[in-house]
Parts: sequence; structure tokens; C-alpha cells
Amino acid sequence: MPSEVPAPSGAPPEVSPDAGLLSPVRAGTEAEAVTGDRAWLRAMLDAEAALARAQARLGIVPASAAAAITELAASDPVDLPGLARRARGAGNPVVPLVADLRRLAGPAGEHVHHGATSQDIVDTAAMLVAARARRVLLAHLDRALDALAGLAERHRDTPVAGRTLGRQALPTTFGAKAAGWLLGVLEARERLAPVPLPVQLGGAAGTLSAYGDRGLDLVAAFADETGLARPVTPWHTRRTPVADLGSALALTAGALGKFATDVVLLAQSEVGEVAEPAAPGRGGSSAMPHKRNPALAVMIRSAALQVPACAQILQASLAAPHERPAGEWHAEWQPFRECLRLTGGAAETAAELAGGLEVAPERMAANLDGLLAVLAGHGTDTGTGAAPALVDRALAAYRASPASGERPPDGGAR
Amino acid sequence: MPSEVPAPSGAPPEVSPDAGLLSPVRAGTEAEAVTGDRAWLRAMLDAEAALARAQARLGIVPASAAAAITELAASDPVDLPGLARRARGAGNPVVPLVADLRRLAGPAGEHVHHGATSQDIVDTAAMLVAARARRVLLAHLDRALDALAGLAERHRDTPVAGRTLGRQALPTTFGAKAAGWLLGVLEARERLAPVPLPVQLGGAAGTLSAYGDRGLDLVAAFADETGLARPVTPWHTRRTPVADLGSALALTAGALGKFATDVVLLAQSEVGEVAEPAAPGRGGSSAMPHKRNPALAVMIRSAALQVPACAQILQASLAAPHERPAGEWHAEWQPFRECLRLTGGAAETAAELAGGLEVAPERMAANLDGLLAVLAGHGTDTGTGAAPALVDRALAAYRASPASGERPPDGGAR
Amino acid sequence: MPSEVPAPSGAPPEVSPDAGLLSPVRAGTEAEAVTGDRAWLRAMLDAEAALARAQARLGIVPASAAAAITELAASDPVDLPGLARRARGAGNPVVPLVADLRRLAGPAGEHVHHGATSQDIVDTAAMLVAARARRVLLAHLDRALDALAGLAERHRDTPVAGRTLGRQALPTTFGAKAAGWLLGVLEARERLAPVPLPVQLGGAAGTLSAYGDRGLDLVAAFADETGLARPVTPWHTRRTPVADLGSALALTAGALGKFATDVVLLAQSEVGEVAEPAAPGRGGSSAMPHKRNPALAVMIRSAALQVPACAQILQASLAAPHERPAGEWHAEWQPFRECLRLTGGAAETAAELAGGLEVAPERMAANLDGLLAVLAGHGTDTGTGAAPALVDRALAAYRASPASGERPPDGGAR
Amino acid sequence: MPSEVPAPSGAPPEVSPDAGLLSPVRAGTEAEAVTGDRAWLRAMLDAEAALARAQARLGIVPASAAAAITELAASDPVDLPGLARRARGAGNPVVPLVADLRRLAGPAGEHVHHGATSQDIVDTAAMLVAARARRVLLAHLDRALDALAGLAERHRDTPVAGRTLGRQALPTTFGAKAAGWLLGVLEARERLAPVPLPVQLGGAAGTLSAYGDRGLDLVAAFADETGLARPVTPWHTRRTPVADLGSALALTAGALGKFATDVVLLAQSEVGEVAEPAAPGRGGSSAMPHKRNPALAVMIRSAALQVPACAQILQASLAAPHERPAGEWHAEWQPFRECLRLTGGAAETAAELAGGLEVAPERMAANLDGLLAVLAGHGTDTGTGAAPALVDRALAAYRASPASGERPPDGGAR
Repeated sequence: MPSEVPAPSGAPPEVSPDAGLLSPVRAGTEAEAVTGDRAWLRAMLDAEAALARAQARLGIVPASAAAAITELAASDPVDLPGLARRARGAGNPVVPLVADLRRLAGPAGEHVHHGATSQDIVDTAAMLVAARARRVLLAHLDRALDALAGLAERHRDTPVAGRTLGRQALPTTFGAKAAGWLLGVLEARERLAPVPLPVQLGGAAGTLSAYGDRGLDLVAAFADETGLARPVTPWHTRRTPVADLGSALALTAGALGKFATDVVLLAQSEVGEVAEPAAPGRGGSSAMPHKRNPALAVMIRSAALQVPACAQILQASLAAPHERPAGEWHAEWQPFRECLRLTGGAAETAAELAGGLEVAPERMAANLDGLLAVLAGHGTDTGTGAAPALVDRALAAYRASPASGERPPDGGAR
Repeated sequence: MPSEVPAPSGAPPEVSPDAGLLSPVRAGTEAEAVTGDRAWLRAMLDAEAALARAQARLGIVPASAAAAITELAASDPVDLPGLARRARGAGNPVVPLVADLRRLAGPAGEHVHHGATSQDIVDTAAMLVAARARRVLLAHLDRALDALAGLAERHRDTPVAGRTLGRQALPTTFGAKAAGWLLGVLEARERLAPVPLPVQLGGAAGTLSAYGDRGLDLVAAFADETGLARPVTPWHTRRTPVADLGSALALTAGALGKFATDVVLLAQSEVGEVAEPAAPGRGGSSAMPHKRNPALAVMIRSAALQVPACAQILQASLAAPHERPAGEWHAEWQPFRECLRLTGGAAETAAELAGGLEVAPERMAANLDGLLAVLAGHGTDTGTGAAPALVDRALAAYRASPASGERPPDGGAR
Repeated sequence: MPSEVPAPSGAPPEVSPDAGLLSPVRAGTEAEAVTGDRAWLRAMLDAEAALARAQARLGIVPASAAAAITELAASDPVDLPGLARRARGAGNPVVPLVADLRRLAGPAGEHVHHGATSQDIVDTAAMLVAARARRVLLAHLDRALDALAGLAERHRDTPVAGRTLGRQALPTTFGAKAAGWLLGVLEARERLAPVPLPVQLGGAAGTLSAYGDRGLDLVAAFADETGLARPVTPWHTRRTPVADLGSALALTAGALGKFATDVVLLAQSEVGEVAEPAAPGRGGSSAMPHKRNPALAVMIRSAALQVPACAQILQASLAAPHERPAGEWHAEWQPFRECLRLTGGAAETAAELAGGLEVAPERMAANLDGLLAVLAGHGTDTGTGAAPALVDRALAAYRASPASGERPPDGGAR
Repeated sequence: MPSEVPAPSGAPPEVSPDAGLLSPVRAGTEAEAVTGDRAWLRAMLDAEAALARAQARLGIVPASAAAAITELAASDPVDLPGLARRARGAGNPVVPLVADLRRLAGPAGEHVHHGATSQDIVDTAAMLVAARARRVLLAHLDRALDALAGLAERHRDTPVAGRTLGRQALPTTFGAKAAGWLLGVLEARERLAPVPLPVQLGGAAGTLSAYGDRGLDLVAAFADETGLARPVTPWHTRRTPVADLGSALALTAGALGKFATDVVLLAQSEVGEVAEPAAPGRGGSSAMPHKRNPALAVMIRSAALQVPACAQILQASLAAPHERPAGEWHAEWQPFRECLRLTGGAAETAAELAGGLEVAPERMAANLDGLLAVLAGHGTDTGTGAAPALVDRALAAYRASPASGERPPDGGAR
């Protein structure tokens, strides 16, 4: 069994044909490249080819047919916009895709999609896309975690005002703030990495009826060929994988959003304790040349504000009728992609933000002055309490996790 | 003042570069064509040109500059994927767009985007797109309403089982069911059509400060040039237009979804009281040649299950900080588009479904037999009560509405 | 026809038995009192009594029976917690309620709930509660609007930094900020006040079958007896009233949330441009005696963050099956109440906040100093542009609206 | 360290003062009893007492004071409705609660809430309530799982139509349908049971500053006294526990909703393959004595349609500012409770439904006849494929899980 989902066959995905004009947080990011329409079509082709190979392994179809189908699938044989429009005929893109493949595959045509149903291909493709996007996402999370750990460590003892309900409360350290960001992202990563991404194969009613007594073996072989996990049973209307990954992505987007929200607030003109990394064209305003905007944090926040609603559509689709729902399944596709690419884009953006964040300890000290005077007036301790020790605990948790240092190259696999 | 939003200048929008592979409900529909990335870019260009012309009217910029900017904007001068990626610099696409236009406009370059801020262009473009998409949507709703009214009228007296909690309850008529669909869609149309779509112009902090004492006149002229409504004041962080249109679209998608849900249930194998219009390639299955699926209703439902969550993002963005929020605004863009194109696609699909729905009165009668026997056994009346009279009331309401017969070509305008 | 929904019959609602411990924004507010379980039970009793009276008007039941039922309903005859538990038998509380009333009404018992279905009573009760809660809510909105108008007027020319993406951008006036809050709330009020709240009566399948040819007359009489609006047809599965009111409440909560969000940000320690009204026990901290928290704004924000999700449940329930859905209807009840009482509590809280907001023009001036210097250095105008003129426009719009000055005592009615 | 969360001290929670009139799915259920306002107040009192005892262990407060505070807390010393109203002063109920306790505790008063902040108590109480509610919930899930396993086993080979998009597709077995329900609920249980529920203690800014160098030891002792988990660091604005539990509850509600949705559809008059357990007063209609409604399934679905939106509020609250957010935290409380009690009520209801479901194999066979004839006409296999084998796999997975057979009585603990 392969240890992870293989790279897409055929040419690498082109720039996504959805240009991302309304979604700067993912425009041009790696997550966008692996989740666009073209990547999804690629994954559907990969699924059909893997199915044929798995069937060839078991002697269900000829090995030559599987080879021909695999070669055809790798050749980018389908007109994407046309396919999308033809999907309206059956309500899903697999019906016209299979028609094309059968027509183009010559003698192997009769072996295309043997015994499968549209959902087998759409769901397997979704898991392939998810696995590829998660790998990208985890890599960016790890970069972000590394940078956040650095911030926590460097500023372990840098005093800063702790603020509750917008008001200065007591001193803490900037390292403790960064440690909170670190742990939040780390916990999200730990939720996200192990979510199982299983292959889907059930046939028309989920009974694998076309395969006689070889159905369960075929599922296993199909899993092996795709690199995805083996499900206990077909999950056509047991949507745990989709909903659970959506929740984990919402948790991740939220953890990144917490970091970004604090950056926006700390970068306010009147606070000025951090600034985003300067770069040509970064944070510019079309109206005010004097202004530097927290553009990275804003983009991350734009994702954190969307992903929970997208994930909710996935949760609400769990209560789906019978052996295939009349709408709930179809409603998953676009929000599932949004969860993946918004969170992926946010992670890439957060890695850049954390890696280049400019910190102003002197401004932190100045802002803190008034509070310290008030506290001293009340006879309250003006120290940072256990903040440095909390940094140490967070860093220890990070260093003990698979997210740091040497770790097995798993995670993204399944 | 123009009576409505003009057609986009320049070439008609190409097929959307987002192919809609994961969204068959809108793939290839009219709503898709007017809401894609390319349509949004077109609207931003239109907004910049209209701003220049409005300023020329008031003598703020030379008429020749306005003409040059208008001509440039109409020429499709910008590389869309590149623009989308460059949007990451400032977190919105207007900063690089203005840079391009200034560079390309020659001597008129210094007059591009004069005194405006990015949000002025993004928001005005969003309203232009919304106006264009609403016009398309209303036309499809009107087709659907006409067909639903026909169903209600033709089946005013056709008995069918009324079903509550999935169980047969008492007889009603199929016309009464159709009248309910009709009124639901009509009420949504009445909510949707008059939502004001105002132009946005405020400058960097919403004070129109670059325009001296001509700011308010300029807003009015800008409204005239775009065909959009005049706002009371700039609405940069008073997001009523966006949230209110989102709610009206969710109501519309829900009303269409009610119709589609009933069609799915009535088309069940064991019920069989309606069938979707037959067409080549329609309702096919990749696994079962014997099966005809309610593909149109399924697509409509896929929209109805997504739009409320997208609209919610817009509602949640109302509580936006200060003179421009750091994320809430950016989070609106993609869900706003989804509300428009999913509902627009659903309306086009619903018009097709309602126009061709096959009704089986004899099956309705057969299904009803058992219930009538039970009711008779209980001594309960077995008639259809006021159902026909309710049809008459619904039809009268429809005929009295702007949605039917001769009416001013408004609606989409503003 | 009565001009508005009458006050509840029987004793005034006690303090809600849900104490509101987890919802300070509405704990002890007027909105809570009219939306609690006890108020809902009261409205169901009122609906049953009004139905009997309407039927007596048309000679369907004896006048004496209607009088007896009305008297019984006014006597608070039902054990609330027991009723709630017994509702599990049928999935709604009307089945056991009717059983109790029939048992307690003596000879009139056979005329209780004649020809009606549970949904007729639950929906009519919901509209009665909504009408009562909206009346309360509008009154608080009007108090808030009056106070916001005062802020806008008094600070028409008070300079303050306009802030975008958290950064100081250009000067505006505090009056212009308040004018934005004013218009946002005003627009929400204008959406909310006219939403029709119709009576519901259809019988088991929506055909009014128990009433022969008097069904439509009975609906009209029932509307008159309750003070609710007359529907075109029964709306048992055409949920426009519920969804549309939910959207209007979300818009209202959002407009109040915009105001509260700005207050929190302006009240930050480092900004200090506003403070909440001081009061004994207000804004205290259990840990920090030196700290004054923006507790009112925080509570308003807590509502604004919840209502959109509650309203979304209502939107998603539109696509409801057949003549009564198996769950979608039942899922509306609690979120609909939350929309009403959270928004009502937020409005009451906002009126208090706006009425007592402390404004610090000198701090605004001090915060602005640095920006003015930068702008002067860039040769940018340092004035407040059209901000004062925008205040004038907003105040004119407010004064022309029913929300200010003399206006008909409508609004809450229907 | 205690192995689980102890039972609440003091008297058992009374019937919840929120009667649940609008929420039959949880009215009178065990989940309701442990999540009502009174249970929440109890948990806050337990948290204050546990804090005092933990501090006594470390010598921070006198043992006698801890004993006195514990005794006071157990005595139900606070007026709940009054407390709820007074919570409006500070925006949370702990400020007035602490005031009461300090006043009532006599000489121990000065040691109440020592060094803690309101959030420490609210969050710890929320985790205590969650632990208690989860224990109840898991027990009901286990009853449901046991019943579903029985259905799957008994009907392993019972043929039934597999239905996709509402249309009969191919035969499967009723056991395979039940196995899908079983696995869905089992996967949700496996997600839910291990979610860590940590104690919260950080003090005003999360630095444990009042406790000198004993802060971290105190957190550990506090965890031990409450029976909750030890957090890595205070999680005041790292809301993983709340959001993650919310997601797991949404998954659970969705899995139960899938079961209920299928029951509703299979119980349709025209399908009639299952019926809900008959019981006096169960499934009655206020209008139609001849009708038996799927009331249990409807109630479960009402929960499944609400929980995702409630959970989304929790996800959206992750991006919370600074050391305590101004609204996001407060917005969590009520939706968090709704997730717990709606899902808990749904689980109790599902256990009853699964335990008593009436299955009609002969009706299944009759409904299947037409499909088999069609399939035979197409030369398609008419068997149930791997359906029985899938049942075996699902049962094996269930039997290998902690949800079945002998297992440690944990789960609810932490």
C-alpha cells in the first residue's frame, strides 16, 4: 500500500481558471493551484484511472484496458468548461465525463467506470483534492508554527499590556501572546492532520453489486491505487469524512484568525506594537500614500470569517436521505473547496506574516506605562506573573509535537 | 438620469473563467456569465470610467481625460489572473488596477481614480454586478412564476393527498400546492426587486474630502453615470445594501427550494405524481440506465442549501469596525457573488422545471384512494375544502403584481 | 378590525422562567418578558380563544362556547413545565394543550380548536409573540435613534480620526460616525416595521376543509380577533413571514452591533475617545477594581454575533416538504425566539448606551495630532471634508422618517 | 487526580426553569436537567468552591476558608433570576455571584475567587456542564448504538430498495441501511468522547499573576478538584475546547439526523417500511385521529437542523481579540448550551426510536417488486450485492469499539 497520495498524474495543474479576483487570501497561492476546477477534474480522471487499475489487479478488467484508461486519463482529454455545462444534464460532472472517456478510450471504453456510480468518482476525487490540499496546508502551518515559536521565544520576557474587553488589564509578555497563537495553531494542526480521507466505492446503491464477491477486495485495491484510506464501508450517505475535515479546517482558519485579529489590533495607529513585514506593494492604499495597512492580517481574517459558514453547510448535509441525497450531496462540493482553499491561503499568508512580523518592544513599554502607574497606585503587583513560564510550556508542547523538528512525513497522506 | 444600469461597456463577458465544475446549478447559466471574475473586473473598469465622467461633468477633471479613461476601460486592458495575484499586495484588486490604468492612460493617467478609495470602486462594482444579475434573475423568476401559475390554474381541482410529516393527512388539490409555490416565489420577488443598489463614493475616510464642496454633487453624478441609486451618505461601513440583498436572495433561493423539494418528494418511485421534463441527457445516471433522476430539482436544492449560509456571512459582516473593517468587508465579496449566482442559476433551472413539469393526475388519484377510504371510515369529509378557492386567491395576487402581464421594465434597475 | 395586536389577555407574563443566566443582553429586559415560555403559552391560549370567538362570529360555534373558552384561556389553566414535557408525545405542545382545554372547558370543550391543526395555533402564537416583541423593540430602537441623532447633531463638527483597517486614515467628525450609526439603525427599523405578521389558519392540510364554504371568511375573522394581518392563503409551508422577520432582525442586530463595535474600539485604553455611561455596578471586573469595561457594548455585540446564525436556520427552513415538514418547522421555534429576544435586548441596551455615551473631544483632537502632521507633510488637506454635510443629510432622513417625531402608532401592530 | 468529574455538589438540579416549551426534543430529558440555568449556576458555585480548595491545598488560603466556601456553595445560596439580571452590570454573572459569596461567606469572604477573573469561573463551569452533559449523551448514544446494531444484525439479509435522489436504484438490505446509521453514530461518538475538557484559570490577563510562582501548581490542583483536564496554558482566548466540542456535537446531531431523516422517509404513507414505536399519546395529531406521525424522528431532525448553526457561532468566535474578547466570548454561552442540550435530547430520543422501531419486511419486498422486474428486464443482477458483508464489517467495528460491551465508565470524564 503506498504510503501517501501520489502526485497528480499528467501535467501539473495550470493556474486555476478561477482567477481568485474576489478572494485575495488564496489568489495565486499553492492551495488555489491544487483546488481549482482543473485540479478537481484532474482528480476525477485520476480516480477513474485508479479504479480501472484496481479492477485489473483483481482481474475484473483487462490489464491492457486499465493501462489505456490510465494513459487516456493522464492526457487531459476533456474540455473543462464544456464538461461543467454538460454536468447540468445529470446534476453532476461524472456522467458526461464517463461518456467522453468511453468514447475516447477505444476498445477499453467498455471498461471505463465499470460498476461504479457518479458519487464514487466525485467523492474519491474530493478526497484526493483534500489530501493534496492538506499536504500544502500542513506545510504552511508548519512554517507559521516555526515562526510563531520564534516570536514566543524571543519575546518570552517582553512586557506588554494584557487587554480584556479592549481595555488594558494587567501586564503580560508578548511571548505569552505569541505562545497562545502557537498553541492555537498547533491544536488545530493536531485536529487536522489525522482526519481520515477514505476512498469511496459502492456502486449505484452502495452494495458493490457489480463486483460479485470481490467488492470488498476491490475497495481495498482502489484505496491502494489512490493512496487514500480504506473505509469500513462505503460512506455515500455517511458523510463523516467531509464534515469532519470541514470542522478541522474551520478550527484551523479560526486559530489563524485569532493571530490575525490580534495583529490588526496591535498594529492600530494608537497602539503600534507590531507592524506587518514591509515589502514593495505591500499594504498600500489607493487613496493614502502615507498609510501602511495590515494587508496580510486582513486577508487571513477574511478567510476566518468565511470558513465557519462553509463548514456549517457540510455539517448540515450530514442528515442526508437514503442512499444518495437529492441536493445535500451536491451542496457540499463548492463549500468543501472553499474550506480547503481559504484555509490553505490563510495558512500561506500567516506563515509570511509570522515570519516577518515587526515587533516594537519600546512601544509596548510606553503603552504600558500608564497602566503600571495605576496598578502601583492600587498596590497591585506590576510583574508579568507566570507569562514566561507559560511560554516555556507552550514551546515544550510544540517541540514535542510532530509539527516541529524531525517527524515522519505523514500528515498530509491520509 | 438614466433609467437603469447600462449594459457593460466593452466586449460582452466571456464565459466565466471559473468553469462552475462544482456548481452545476449555475454552470453555463446567464447568472454565471454576469457574475464571474471577468464580469467583476468589467464592473470595476466601468466604475472607474463612470467616476471620471462624473468628475468631468462637474469640471473636476478634463472631459478629454474622462473620455480617454472611458475608452481605456472599455478596451479590456488588464490581465485578470495577474491582477488577482497582485491584489494580495494591498488585500484588494483596486490598488493594482489603478496602477495599471494610470500607467496606460497616458496624460489622462493622473485623473484616474481621483479622490476615490479602493472601496468606492469595489462596492460600486459589486452593485453593478448585482444590478445586472438581478435583472437576469428577475426575468427567470418571471418565467418560473408564469409556469407555476399555469400549473395552479390547470390543476385547480385535481385532487392529491395533502401530506404532513410525511404522512397522508387530508386531500388537497395539486393546484393548491402549485399556488403555494407561486406565492412563495412571488413574495420573494417582491422582496428582491426593490432592494436599493446604491453607488458608493466616499474617499479615504468617507468624507469626500478630495472634492471640496462638490462631494455630494459628485455622488449624484456618479450615480447617474452608473445607473445606480443615490445613497443618503456613503455606506462604506453601513452595509445595509449588501446584507439586505443577501437576505432577499436567500428568501428567493428558499422559495425555489420549497418547490424543488416538493418535486423531489412527489417524483419518488413510490409516489410518482410528477416527473421532470424529459430531455436528451437529462436526469441520467452513470450507473443505472433504467433510472430518471430529478436532476433539475436536485440542482435547485443544492443552491437552496448553500445560499442561507452565504447570506449569513453578509449579515455577520454588518458589525464592522470604524471607517473600513479589517476583514469583514473582504469576507463579503465571494459569498455575495455566490448568493447572486447560485440563486440566479436556481431561478433559471426552476423556470425550466416548472415549464416542463409532467403531472400525473391518475397517479394522484390512485395514491389518494386509501386515504379516502380511511377518512370515509371515520366519517370525515373527503373533499378538497377551500383548495380551489385558495388557488383563485393566489392567481389573483399574482396577476395584480408587477411580476405578471404588462409592467414597467424596472426591477433590475436599482 | 382592531388596529393592532391587543395586549395579552389574562395576567401579565411573569418573569420568564428561563432566567437568562447565559444571555445578559436580554436578562430582565422587556423583550425577554414578552418572549419567554410563559409568553408563548399565553399566546397559544390567546390564539385558541380568538379562534373560538371568530367561529362564534360566523355561527360555527355557539357564542357561549366562545365566551367560555375565552374565559378559560385567560385563567392560565395549564401547567407549563408539564405541558412542555407532554409536547414530546406529538412533537408539539398544542396536542396536550388542546387535550387540557377540552377537558377543562366543560360543555364548551367540544368546540375547542374546532377544525384547526396544531400548526395553526403554534404559528399564530408565534406571530402574536413577534408582534408584541416587535412593538417593544421598535420603542427601544426609537429611543436609540433619538440619542444617536443627538450625538450626530452635537458632534457634527467635532474632528476625529477616520480609521480604515485599524489605521488612522483622514479626519472625519464624530458626528459623521454617529450619523452612520443612526442611518444604519434607521434602515433596519424601516425594514423591520412593515414586515407582515399574518394569522395562520388552514386545518390539517391547509384546505380549511372543516369549515365548508366559510373558511376564507373565518381566516379574516380570526385575523381580526387576533389583530394580526390577513394572509393571502395559509402559509403553513410558505414560511416567508418567519424568514423575512428573521432577516430584518438580523439586519437590526447587525446595525446595533456596528455601533457597539465602534464603541468598543473607541473606548480602548489607547484611544479613549468615548466611555460608556457610568453607573453603580456597571462595567466592573471581578479581578481589577481599576478597570471600567464597555459592558453595554459587549452585550450588544454578543447579540449581533448570534442573531445571523439563528436567522439562517429560518432561511434554511424555507425549503420545507409538503403540507408540513418533518423537522424544518420544529427547528424554527427556538431560533425565531432567539432572534426576537436577542435583538430586543440589544435594542434596549443600545438605547441606554447611546443615551449616556460619554464623548471626549479633547482626546479625539489629541489622537488626531500626529495624523494631521503627517498629512500636512504630504500636502494633503487636513479638513473634515463633507462630514458635517453628511450629518445634515442623515438627520434630515431621520426626521423625515416615522421613527422620529409625530407618527402613527403603527409599527408594532402587524 | 480524580478519575472523573464528580457529581454536582448540593441538591440535584431541579427541573430546569426553562421549561423547553419550544424545544420538545429536549423538554424533560436528562440533557436538559444538566444544562439548564440552574445547572450552570451550580457549576459556577462548584468552580468557586473547587478553586478555594485547590488554593487551600497549596496554602494560598486557609483550609477553614475553603471548607466554609465549599459549604456555602453547596447550599444553593443565590437567587437565580436576580443574578441573571444583575449580570447585566458587568456583562457576566460572575461579578454579582462573587459579590454575593463574599458577603455571605463571613470571615472566609475575603478568600472567595482569590486571584481569579470572571472568565475563569464561567469557562470552568462550562466545562463542568459539558462533562456532565457529555456523560449523559454518551450513555444515550450507547443505547442507540446497541439498538441500531440489533437492527443491522436482524435485518442483515432483508431486501429493501436502495434509493438515490428519491428514486429506487438497486436492492440493498435493511441491515445495510441500519449499519450505515450505526457507523455514523459510532464515528460521531469516537469524535466526541475524547475531546479534552480542561479547567480554566489565568487571572485577569491570563498570567496567573496573583499566585506568584505557584500559579501552574494551582492550575493542576484546580483541575484535580474539578475533575477536569489540565490545560497546557490558560485558554481564555484560545477557544479550541469550546469550538472542538461544538463540532463534535454537530457531527453527532448530524449522524442522528441521518437516521431520523431516513425513518421519516421510510415511514411515508406510500412507503410504509418502518413505523415509530407506538405508545399512548405518541405521534398523535390535533386534527386527524387516523394519523400516526413520526414524532420521534421529527424531534431528532429539529435538533439536527439547529446544532450546525449553533456550532458555527462557536467556530466564528475563535478569532477573538486579545486576552478577552468584547463579545465573542459572551456569544458562545447560549449556543454552546444549545449544542449540548439539543444533541443530548436528540440522543435520548434516538435511543427510544431505534429501540422500538417497527420494521415491515413484507412491505419492503412489495415495494421492491417493480424495481426487480425492471432490473430483470435490463438483465441487471437483482441481488443485494455485498450488503450483508457490509453489515458484518460494521458490526465488527462496533464490537471492537469502546461503545459496546465492557469498557471503562469514562467517556464523560474529560
